This record gives sequence, structure tokens and C-alpha cells, in this order.
Amino acid sequence: MNGLHQRFCFLFFILPVLMLAQSRLRDHGVEVGVLRPGTLNAITDVPGVKVGQFTLNQGDDIRTGVTAILPHSGNIFQEKVPAAIYVGNGFGKLAGYTQVKELGNLETPIILTNTLSVPTAVNAVIGYTLNQPENQNVRSVNAVVGETNDGYLNDIRGRHITEEHVLKAIENASTGPVAEGSVGAGTGTICFGFKGGIGTSSRVLPKESGGYTVGVLVQTNFGGVLQVAGVEVGKKLGHYSDSFKYSPDGSCMMVVLTDAPLDSRNLERLAKRAMLGLSRTGGIASNGSGDYVIAVSTAEACRIPYESENPIQNVPTLRNEAMTPLFLATIEATEEAILNSLFAGETMIGRDGHKIEALPKEKVLAMLKDAGKLDR
Amino acid sequence: MNGLHQRFCFLFFILPVLMLAQSRLRDHGVEVGVLRPGTLNAITDVPGVKVGQFTLNQGDDIRTGVTAILPHSGNIFQEKVPAAIYVGNGFGKLAGYTQVKELGNLETPIILTNTLSVPTAVNAVIGYTLNQPENQNVRSVNAVVGETNDGYLNDIRGRHITEEHVLKAIENASTGPVAEGSVGAGTGTICFGFKGGIGTSSRVLPKESGGYTVGVLVQTNFGGVLQVAGVEVGKKLGHYSDSFKYSPDGSCMMVVLTDAPLDSRNLERLAKRAMLGLSRTGGIASNGSGDYVIAVSTAEACRIPYESENPIQNVPTLRNEAMTPLFLATIEATEEAILNSLFAGETMIGRDGHKIEALPKEKVLAMLKDAGKLDR
Amino acid sequence: MNGLHQRFCFLFFILPVLMLAQSRLRDHGVEVGVLRPGTLNAITDVPGVKVGQFTLNQGDDIRTGVTAILPHSGNIFQEKVPAAIYVGNGFGKLAGYTQVKELGNLETPIILTNTLSVPTAVNAVIGYTLNQPENQNVRSVNAVVGETNDGYLNDIRGRHITEEHVLKAIENASTGPVAEGSVGAGTGTICFGFKGGIGTSSRVLPKESGGYTVGVLVQTNFGGVLQVAGVEVGKKLGHYSDSFKYSPDGSCMMVVLTDAPLDSRNLERLAKRAMLGLSRTGGIASNGSGDYVIAVSTAEACRIPYESENPIQNVPTLRNEAMTPLFLATIEATEEAILNSLFAGETMIGRDGHKIEALPKEKVLAMLKDAGKLDR
Amino acid sequence: MNGLHQRFCFLFFILPVLMLAQSRLRDHGVEVGVLRPGTLNAITDVPGVKVGQFTLNQGDDIRTGVTAILPHSGNIFQEKVPAAIYVGNGFGKLAGYTQVKELGNLETPIILTNTLSVPTAVNAVIGYTLNQPENQNVRSVNAVVGETNDGYLNDIRGRHITEEHVLKAIENASTGPVAEGSVGAGTGTICFGFKGGIGTSSRVLPKESGGYTVGVLVQTNFGGVLQVAGVEVGKKLGHYSDSFKYSPDGSCMMVVLTDAPLDSRNLERLAKRAMLGLSRTGGIASNGSGDYVIAVSTAEACRIPYESENPIQNVPTLRNEAMTPLFLATIEATEEAILNSLFAGETMIGRDGHKIEALPKEKVLAMLKDAGKLDR
Repeated sequence: MNGLHQRFCFLFFILPVLMLAQSRLRDHGVEVGVLRPGTLNAITDVPGVKVGQFTLNQGDDIRTGVTAILPHSGNIFQEKVPAAIYVGNGFGKLAGYTQVKELGNLETPIILTNTLSVPTAVNAVIGYTLNQPENQNVRSVNAVVGETNDGYLNDIRGRHITEEHVLKAIENASTGPVAEGSVGAGTGTICFGFKGGIGTSSRVLPKESGGYTVGVLVQTNFGGVLQVAGVEVGKKLGHYSDSFKYSPDGSCMMVVLTDAPLDSRNLERLAKRAMLGLSRTGGIASNGSGDYVIAVSTAEACRIPYESENPIQNVPTLRNEAMTPLFLATIEATEEAILNSLFAGETMIGRDGHKIEALPKEKVLAMLKDAGKLDR
Repeated sequence: MNGLHQRFCFLFFILPVLMLAQSRLRDHGVEVGVLRPGTLNAITDVPGVKVGQFTLNQGDDIRTGVTAILPHSGNIFQEKVPAAIYVGNGFGKLAGYTQVKELGNLETPIILTNTLSVPTAVNAVIGYTLNQPENQNVRSVNAVVGETNDGYLNDIRGRHITEEHVLKAIENASTGPVAEGSVGAGTGTICFGFKGGIGTSSRVLPKESGGYTVGVLVQTNFGGVLQVAGVEVGKKLGHYSDSFKYSPDGSCMMVVLTDAPLDSRNLERLAKRAMLGLSRTGGIASNGSGDYVIAVSTAEACRIPYESENPIQNVPTLRNEAMTPLFLATIEATEEAILNSLFAGETMIGRDGHKIEALPKEKVLAMLKDAGKLDR
Repeated sequence: MNGLHQRFCFLFFILPVLMLAQSRLRDHGVEVGVLRPGTLNAITDVPGVKVGQFTLNQGDDIRTGVTAILPHSGNIFQEKVPAAIYVGNGFGKLAGYTQVKELGNLETPIILTNTLSVPTAVNAVIGYTLNQPENQNVRSVNAVVGETNDGYLNDIRGRHITEEHVLKAIENASTGPVAEGSVGAGTGTICFGFKGGIGTSSRVLPKESGGYTVGVLVQTNFGGVLQVAGVEVGKKLGHYSDSFKYSPDGSCMMVVLTDAPLDSRNLERLAKRAMLGLSRTGGIASNGSGDYVIAVSTAEACRIPYESENPIQNVPTLRNEAMTPLFLATIEATEEAILNSLFAGETMIGRDGHKIEALPKEKVLAMLKDAGKLDR
Repeated sequence: MNGLHQRFCFLFFILPVLMLAQSRLRDHGVEVGVLRPGTLNAITDVPGVKVGQFTLNQGDDIRTGVTAILPHSGNIFQEKVPAAIYVGNGFGKLAGYTQVKELGNLETPIILTNTLSVPTAVNAVIGYTLNQPENQNVRSVNAVVGETNDGYLNDIRGRHITEEHVLKAIENASTGPVAEGSVGAGTGTICFGFKGGIGTSSRVLPKESGGYTVGVLVQTNFGGVLQVAGVEVGKKLGHYSDSFKYSPDGSCMMVVLTDAPLDSRNLERLAKRAMLGLSRTGGIASNGSGDYVIAVSTAEACRIPYESENPIQNVPTLRNEAMTPLFLATIEATEEAILNSLFAGETMIGRDGHKIEALPKEKVLAMLKDAGKLDR
């Protein structure tokens, strides 16, 4: 916002607002943490990762969608990836947990959507998998589908998501920048009482720590007392529930991908750290929150073929001690991804005229400036 | 057995066969364990419990169905029941695990079906719950749906179960005797290489141990080396996989209900014991098995209202030390329920002409007789 | 600070330093979070709770000790308390975990000490318990003993803690203010590269949220990138490991006590939130960190008698929805307890001349002032 | 053996009894399961594994001891082994659980002893580890020590085990046959109301299943309704608690070693199966039972060096599908190890004149004969 002194409203008001609407936290000079992001500062900085979204924003009361994350471009069922899911708070309906826990791998794209559309998304993923040519004899598919509840803005009881919508999100998947805010599974979500949505961020470790990339994508729909880069925004705005009494306030889905060669045990440890990132934004994992973290290693040498002649696989595995920098990267990228979802949010009106304001970015940036966060 | 109309046959052959077909293990004088069963020797011995089934046995290749277990006759979402789920081996797609684990309760009927029909069943349960009159503002439902894979006999890829089928199973639910064998979710399942299916059993504790009833219902679809009341039937028949190499051989769903006032922690401990009962039949929880136990307390005083003015609930809770007889009851009832599923099984031909023989009950009974198991 | 006797120094230098040395974060006007602390801002704000410490600071290389927390003043074995332990990161030697998990209760004082003295402390607690007059027939004791590794400053291999030291900590236990910093189990610990130690804090919920007190005591010995009330102190000071490579950097023990009537399931959920508080100080739960949270309900009506005529206990239990404010209280009190441990730390020289500086409080307070944290 | 009334008692009665005392179940022609044992039918069939025991059977009331299992002959701290611990029922004091769970490895010998001597054993193992020459800078040791409660026969409150006893058990360790029955940690234990103790067994997989060896060692001290090779011995003898009410009846420690190259995730799955073996003997994991399974892979290529220049280790890992035969082997070896502990037990009198009878082997063998178990 510095150095803008133009004469028309368009220049003085509209343009900056548009810029803000499209800007991300880091565009304002705010650095979260001590590690550097990847080129896109997105989950797609992890090589080969694709994200696809389908937004269903229709009429007065449909505010929902689907986000798909593909850890690689091949047949995921035939080339499974090491995976783990950590349950931060289990008031949620994520599908696929127990098999990932038992077998340590993921065999489908990861789908995010709204709470009551999980089974439809599972059905879609089953169909998608059964229909891939190499899978013609497959009779068991463990779809991993996460969700948050967008029922305040969206007519969630109407269950408007169809299998086709889910398939479109998968088809849409691409590398490159990821749309944030009220898109895909984040279309109707609310975060700290402001408009939440999809957010993403990444970190690249220094060479001496392995040089790995960690990418995070979040669907934010939870509560607490907002902190932006440590600045107590929620408290200053008085914008938090006074008593936190009996409010089943939302959920957060976090997807953590890395090209580091990790087994499922260390992926579960990595996943756990995303909750620490959530905490740094002021999240509290309230009773009603379904907070889940899905962590996946995309390292090619770690892929697990569906069938193999050889019962033994030689797997490169990072030693426990080398996990610490990856933990830090996960925490930082999760914190920034959540903040990005807020910075990308725009005011939305939905079901029954319910209105959720966007984060007042000007005010927040002013607070950040006062706290000395903008001047580096 | 169809098409046999001979007069003498009826006397000398059909009648005994029919008796066998309809008979349960205990009808032959075989007692499993040391505790006594309830009146029906079924999960419905637990007061108020209802079971409903829908069987889809059509054409050459559809051999599947749905089994519904209702812990009480009220609105389960409004009057939740304490619950726990134990994962014996997590190669399965059971829906609803993480929320039951987090919140310690169940808010829907329990549904069992085939692997690829879980999402359809979840959709049906969501619809069922949203449509109950008291639930008009409900926007979140945690459906608990278990499954085993009937894909050898059933065209599971065809996903023939519809939401209507699931609703019919719920509607069909009643107290009283429970149909066993190739019915409902057990229509197309295989157990120890023989025709498996639905089985049930119960135990009633002596007064001095609390007098509680434990009822178990199983959907049997797993492998190992069959033992019937300790007699090594599988080994004697040579009827087991020699190497157990690379065979993703099935699953077992176990539902344990009791009127004992238990909290979710002790219900999880109870659930764990069902796996010990499975073991006594020769089950080994093979790699490919999805073995899950859902345990519920039906005690009225333990019900958890969806909403309450009072944030504190006074809950009668059985002390840890009083769990031991309930553990024994669960083990015995699970063992006998599994054996009942086998005794009720009839030879079935399904998909691609695949044929699974019924347990050769005459041979088995002869072995039991030789081992001295019939003469008490 | 000993041996400084200058007159002007006293006025211009010593006095402020002493004030700083004795001051706590909140004394400087820094408020962590939105809830208010109890009278003492200590774990002992929870009625009936006692804390006792024994400090072993001897010679050049012994820098260790013991901290004991007693949930009530009675015979804890005879009147057990509902409890849960959450493992944030399990690189640690805490004793007693599995029994607390299984049975949901605690039957001894909680002891904290150094890593290699855990068995000695367990032996002491066993002796303490066996010797209580009502326990003369007791043959099984589950001592809960946590630890962090003070081996940089302390000759930990010498295992200088004796059973008598542990018993003294228990005997010393009292209500009232709790000594912080380099005392008891915190004598030789290091936090964010500065002198850590014992810290404590509390929160009292508003009446409408139940009015419960949550008290937290921590033994801080872990790493990350320090944040004080959201201000990036570690980053500004450049005081963090650049690569975080291969450094098994410590641990944090967190004890959370509350008078809210909670069962062990909700206590485990509460315990989980302490990790979110740790995160807000910049903690990352590094690979080498043993981060454990022990949570206990001190509510009298929830006590579990060792033996009872009645197998059923009527237990008042807080409903799930009422947990959210307790979660927030736990997060805030944990964050502040950790910061208090740093504010109470003083520069220490120990084993092999190793020196750890105290947190440079003047610099930190200046940073806090710049960030607008002191002027409310 | 019925109807023996000969005059040369020594020849016709005493001698066979002595033979029985030394005999193992399989010596009588009883085969448990379908897989074949290794040469010794002992845990030491796993190459490189050593077992050492120290028996403390003194005076009227000391009936206890120590059993040590060494997965390999090197410095275990420097060359850690992949490991997992499964908690069948956590009413126990096993040390070392959480670190094994977090890091997936074992770094000390496994020690078994009595409940109240766990801390002494931990102290001994710490000393043992610190004193190994390569470990002079080690400041953290995660000793894994299991226990059962021998307090009925042993003056457990006297805590008679010393660190020297533990070190002697480690020093005594050797390959070759393993003493069973009332030796080492099994000296004073009770199983199904009869004299229990140490037992061991093994299985060797067929070549086509990998040819791996699974060895099991148990310390039996638990209850239920005894079954020997499926024969309901406890029921026939009327030798079981009628109500199972309020009896904290013992525990079982199970150690499972294999040379199969397994990661900690699959080792935990393997460990779980030992509980299925326990169940087949009639064990019920009663409330008061501390049932733990420690599983370790001894495969050399899977060892984890304490320190390494290379942050990535290439680990041969058995695929999930190849686990099934190992599961079966674990179940069978656990069942037989428990039965061997009973067959090796001899009547013992201990504390306060408490007397526990040996399993009446003649009667049991007669029952087995009647059931057709001896004539193969």
C-alpha cells in the first residue's frame, strides 16, 4: 500500500482493494517463520503434485465445492504412496482413515468437500478408480475424502455435490498456482468468524537439511482467537466468541505433501506438526472441530506397487533425526496456508441471507504495521 | 436342496439335512464357553435392540445385502449411545471411526454391507437421519457403516446396493430372532473357505457379576484354520491355505451390544475382546482382513441427549474391575456367533460361476463327536 | 547476581535486574490470551493442589532436581483421580503411560525429574505408596514420572538423584505460590537455547462457561524459534538453530490440572491442547523432544475409590460441548507457563563449564514494547 | 496313565512323572497349529538371539527373578533394531513403551521381571548401557522392561531383585535351549490357577512364504478358562473362577522375535497377533491383566545405527501382503509357548504358605487323548 497517491477513487480505493483481494500475506512483506517458501509458495511446489477444484456457487444458498489433490500423475492405485493421517480432533467424517493407518499408504486422490457430501465423493473416487484401465480387476478401493461443514452459508442438507462435480475437480487438476479463498471445498467455509476457504503455502529446506520441499493445502473452517504472524488480531478486533460455549465451530483439513522419502511412521509425526501450525493462527481445536492432517511422501523411490513379484521392497527412508527441519517446515507452511486462506477470502452471502465478512485486511495490515511486521 | 420330493428321502435324508440347515451349533449340544446364552442366543437378547436385513440375491451374480442394528427404538441422533470401535486389522472401509473415537458415542443405526457400497449406505443413513422430524436443523451426521468384501460371489463392482435397500433394512428392524447365514450383509460372504454370513449369539452374566446381557452379531468373511469348539476342523479337512501367501482373504465385522452401563473407554476394551473370540474360531486377522468391532452400551441411563440445558451429566459407570465377566461374555458370544454364521451357511453359486460350499456340517459334527464335544 | 554490593549499582542496575529476575511475564503488563488467570496464576489455583520441589545444585556439575505435583491431599492410591496422558512426541522415558491410558486414572503423585533418574523416582513413589498405612496390602503401584534431559548442564550420567530427594519433594509439597525457573526438575534445563526450568500459570473460566480453573505446570527443555506473546524473539535475536539438523534438542513436560469434572477421554483431549500452547511459544516438537502432557481432574465427585462395594459409580461428567473453553484455557495457561519458566531463568554454568544464558529479558521487553504488547 | 497300580512305583509311576515334569507339550505328540517349529522350538531359533535368566528362589517367601532377551550380540544401543510394542491390556508397568512407539526401535536388551522391580531393572539396563565402551557419551537410554505380578507366591513388596541380578541375567544370556517354567521372571507366576512361568516356542515358514523364523517367549501369569490344543481343560476340571468378579488376575508378557525384515508398523501388527495366540489358550485379558507384546526384527539389514553420516537408510521391507504367514506363525508360537510354560511348571509353595499346584499333566494328557489329540 505504500506509495499510492493517485487522484481517482479507482486509484485510491478500488484498485488497492482489488489488489488486496488478490494479494497473499507474503505480498505485503510479512514473513511467517524462518524458512523460505518454494517458487509458488504452494503445495504444487512439491514436484509432480496437482490440484484441481470445482466450485459450486449457485443461487441464494448453494456455496460449496470440491478440491482434489493428486500426489502424482500416474495411476495412484497401482503406484500407492506412503501416507499417514493424524486426527487433531475427530469431530469429523473423513473417509479412509483406518486403512491408511493400518497399511501406511494412500491409493487414491485426496478429495476435500463438505461434510454431507463425503459419501458422494467416495462413490466418485471408487468409480474413478474402478474405471482406470489397469484397475479392471480391482474390487476394493480406499478413498480418502476429508470435509468441513459449510452449512452456515451453504444449504448443506440439500447435498448438491454430485459425483460428476468430484470427477471434474480431479480432471481439473494441474500443476502450477493454486486458487485460494472461496473456491472448491473452501467455497462456503468460515475461519475465525471471517470468510475462510482454501489456502496453500510451502517451504524448501536448505541443502544441508536435505533440500526437501514441504507443501501444505488447507480448507479452513474453524475458530479460536485469530493471530496473524503473532499479532493478536482477534483480540484487538474483539472478534471472538466470549464464552466459546457450546459452539461446534467448524473444522480444518490440512494436506501436507513432501518429496522427502518418509515412511508412514514419520509421516504421521509430520502430520502431527500441522496442528502446531494451526495453533499459531489462534486455532484451538474446539470440541466441534474436525481437524485432520493427511501427510504423503511423493518420493518416487518410496512408491508402493499394488502388486509385485518381490515380497521385499528396498525403501530409502529418512532417519528420525532428519525429521526436525521437516517438522518446522510443516508448521510454518500450515500457519501461512491458513492465513492465505483468510487473505484470499471475500465477503459472502449465502443460505438464509447469512453473511460472512472477509477479513478486514486493511485493519489487519495496519495492526501488522504497528507491530513492526511490515518493515523488513 | 431344491427339487427333492421323494417320500423316503424326506424321512431319511431331507429332514436331517433341513434340521442341519436350520440348526445352530448349540442345537447339537455343543456349548461354547462357560457362560449361558440369553433366551434367543442372539444380539436381540439385549433389551430394546432391533436387527433388520435386506438380502439382494438376484440373477447370476448379485449376492449381497444390508444388515442394520438399532441399539434402541428412539431417535438415535437425539439420544446418542456410548460407543467405541476397535480396529483389529484396518484393511477396511468402515465409516464413522474417528468421530466415535473422539466423542465416545454413536448417533445412527449401525449398518453393515459390502465394501463398495459403504458410501451409498452412508448417504442413506444421512438421509434417514435428516428426515426424522426432530432433526430438521441437523447439518452433521456421523454414520457408522461397516463392510466386508463379497466380491468373489457378488458383482461388487456393479455396486447394486441402493439407498432404498439400506432404508429397507432399517425399516425391517425388529426385536426377536435374527436370521443367520446368507442373509443381509452376509449374503455373499465366505468364512474359512466355506459359506459364511451373518451369525449371532449372546451371554447373560450371573446376578453376582451384574446380570448384564452381551449380544454379538457378526458378518463373517475371513480366513485362517477353522476350529469349532476347539476341534481343528480346518486342519483335519486340509481345508486351509497352505502358505497364506498374498491372499487378501476377507474381513469380519463384529457388533457387540450390552445393557451394562459402560463409558466409551471400557466399551473399547470390551470391543478388543471380540478379536479374542474370533481367534478361537481359528481366525488370524490376515493382512487383507478388515476386522472391526463396534461396541455400544444400550443402558438407558447412559444415553447422551443431543442437546441439553445442563452441561454436566450424571452417568452411572461400571468400575474397571467389573469388566472381566463382560470380557469373557464377549469372547464367548463372538466365537459362537461366528460358528453360527457357518452353521447357517448354505452352498452358493455366484459371480462367474464361483461356488462356495457350505460347511460340511455332518463331517464337522462327527469330528465334534469324536472329540467328545456332543455328549454332554 | 550474588556478590554485587555497589551502592549506585543497586539503584541503577541491580534493582531493575532483581525486579526482572523475580518478575513474571504478566508483571510487565503482557497478557497472554483472552482469559484471566487465577489468583496465583499457578497450578495451585486449582483447589487442593500441592507442588513440592527439591533442587540439587551442587559443585561444578550437578544441576538437577525433582518436582512433585499432588492432585489432592489424601491418599491418592486409595482415592484415584481421572487422568490421561497425551504423547506430543514420544522421545522420552515417562513412566506409567500405558496403565493411565487403560484404566483412565492416576494413583500416585506426579513426579518430574531428569531422564536417567526416572527409575529412582519410580522406586521412591512405590516406596511412598507401599508405606502409607492404608496401603499395607498393596502389591502394584503405577507411578507416573516424567522427565526431560538436563545432561548439558548436569552430570546426568552420575545419576545423583536419590529416592530421598524424591520423597523430600513430595514432603515439601504445599499449596500457594510455586517457585519457577531453575528449581526442582527445572534446575538444569534449557529452553529455546536460554535457561529454562519450571513455569506455571492458570486460567479461570467465566461463570457461564462453568467457572472452572485450569492450572498448568511445565518443565521446559525444548527448542524451536522463540515467540513471546507472538513477538518473534528468536528470529529477531538470530537465536535459533539454522538447520535444526540432527539435534535431539530436549523435551517438555506439561501437567494440566482442573477442577472440572472430566472423564479420561475428555482429559486426553484437554491434554492434547497443551501442545497447541507449546506451539505458540515457538516450540516445534523436534525429533529429539519428549513432549508429554499429563491431565487430571481434581473434582471430588470424580474420585475413584481403590475398592468399592458398589460396582457402579455415578460420575458427574462434563458434556463434550462444554470442553471448548477448557481447551482455550489449557492453551493459554501452557503458553504462559512456558514463558514464565523463561522469565524466571537465570544464567547457569554447569557440567564441563557449559554455560547457558538467561533469556535477555530487557531486550525481550523492548521488543514487546515495540510490538505494542506492553501498553495495555 | 489311569489304572496304574504296579508295585515298582519308581518304574511305572515316578519315572513317567519326572519325564512329564521335563517334557514339553509337543513331546507328547500334540501339535499346535499347522506350521512347523524350529530346531529348538524356542525363541532362540531366531538366529543370533540370546536368552539369559536369573532365578531368585530363596527362603519361604522369595519367588521371583529376571529374564533377559537379547536380539543380537552386538551393542544394541549402537545398532538398534526395528521394534514395536502392542498393549493387549494396559494394566501393567512396562517401561519404554512411548519411545518405541515414536521412534520404531529398541536400543536395549528386553528385560522381564516382577511388577515392583521394574525400576530397579531399568536402572540396571541404564547402567549396563552407559558402561559399554562405545557409549561413553550417551546421556539417554530407553530401557524396555516388562513385568507380571508374582505377589501371591513372592514377597513382592520386599523388592528383592537388585541391579546385580538383572546384570547377571544379561550376562547369562546364550543361544541354545531356553529353560522353561519356574525360572527367571517366571519363578513365581501363576497361569490359569496353575503354576505358570517362562515358556517358549517357534515357527519356521515354508520357503515359499519367505522361510522366516518367528520365535516367542512368554512370562505367563494370567487367567481365563484353560484350553490345551482346543481341549477345554479348565471347564472339565471346573478350574476357573465362577464369576470372574473383581479379580485382578495377572498378566502376560510376550516377546516376539523374527528375522523377517519388518518395519515398526508391521511389527506392531505382528505383535497384535500374539494376543490371538493367548486367546487360544483360554486367556481373556481380564481387567487386571497387563498383557504386552514386544516385537522385534533381528534382520541385520534393518539395524539402525545410533549415528550415521547418511540421513537416508535403504531398508529392505517386507510388503504388507507377505505378513499373513508371519501372523499365523506368531499366533501358533504364542499359544504353544504359553502351554509350554504350564507343562514346565511344578507345584510351588511361597509367601505366607501360599501353594500353587502344577498343571495336572496326567489328567490333561488323558483329556487330550480322549479328544484324539495324541494319536497323530
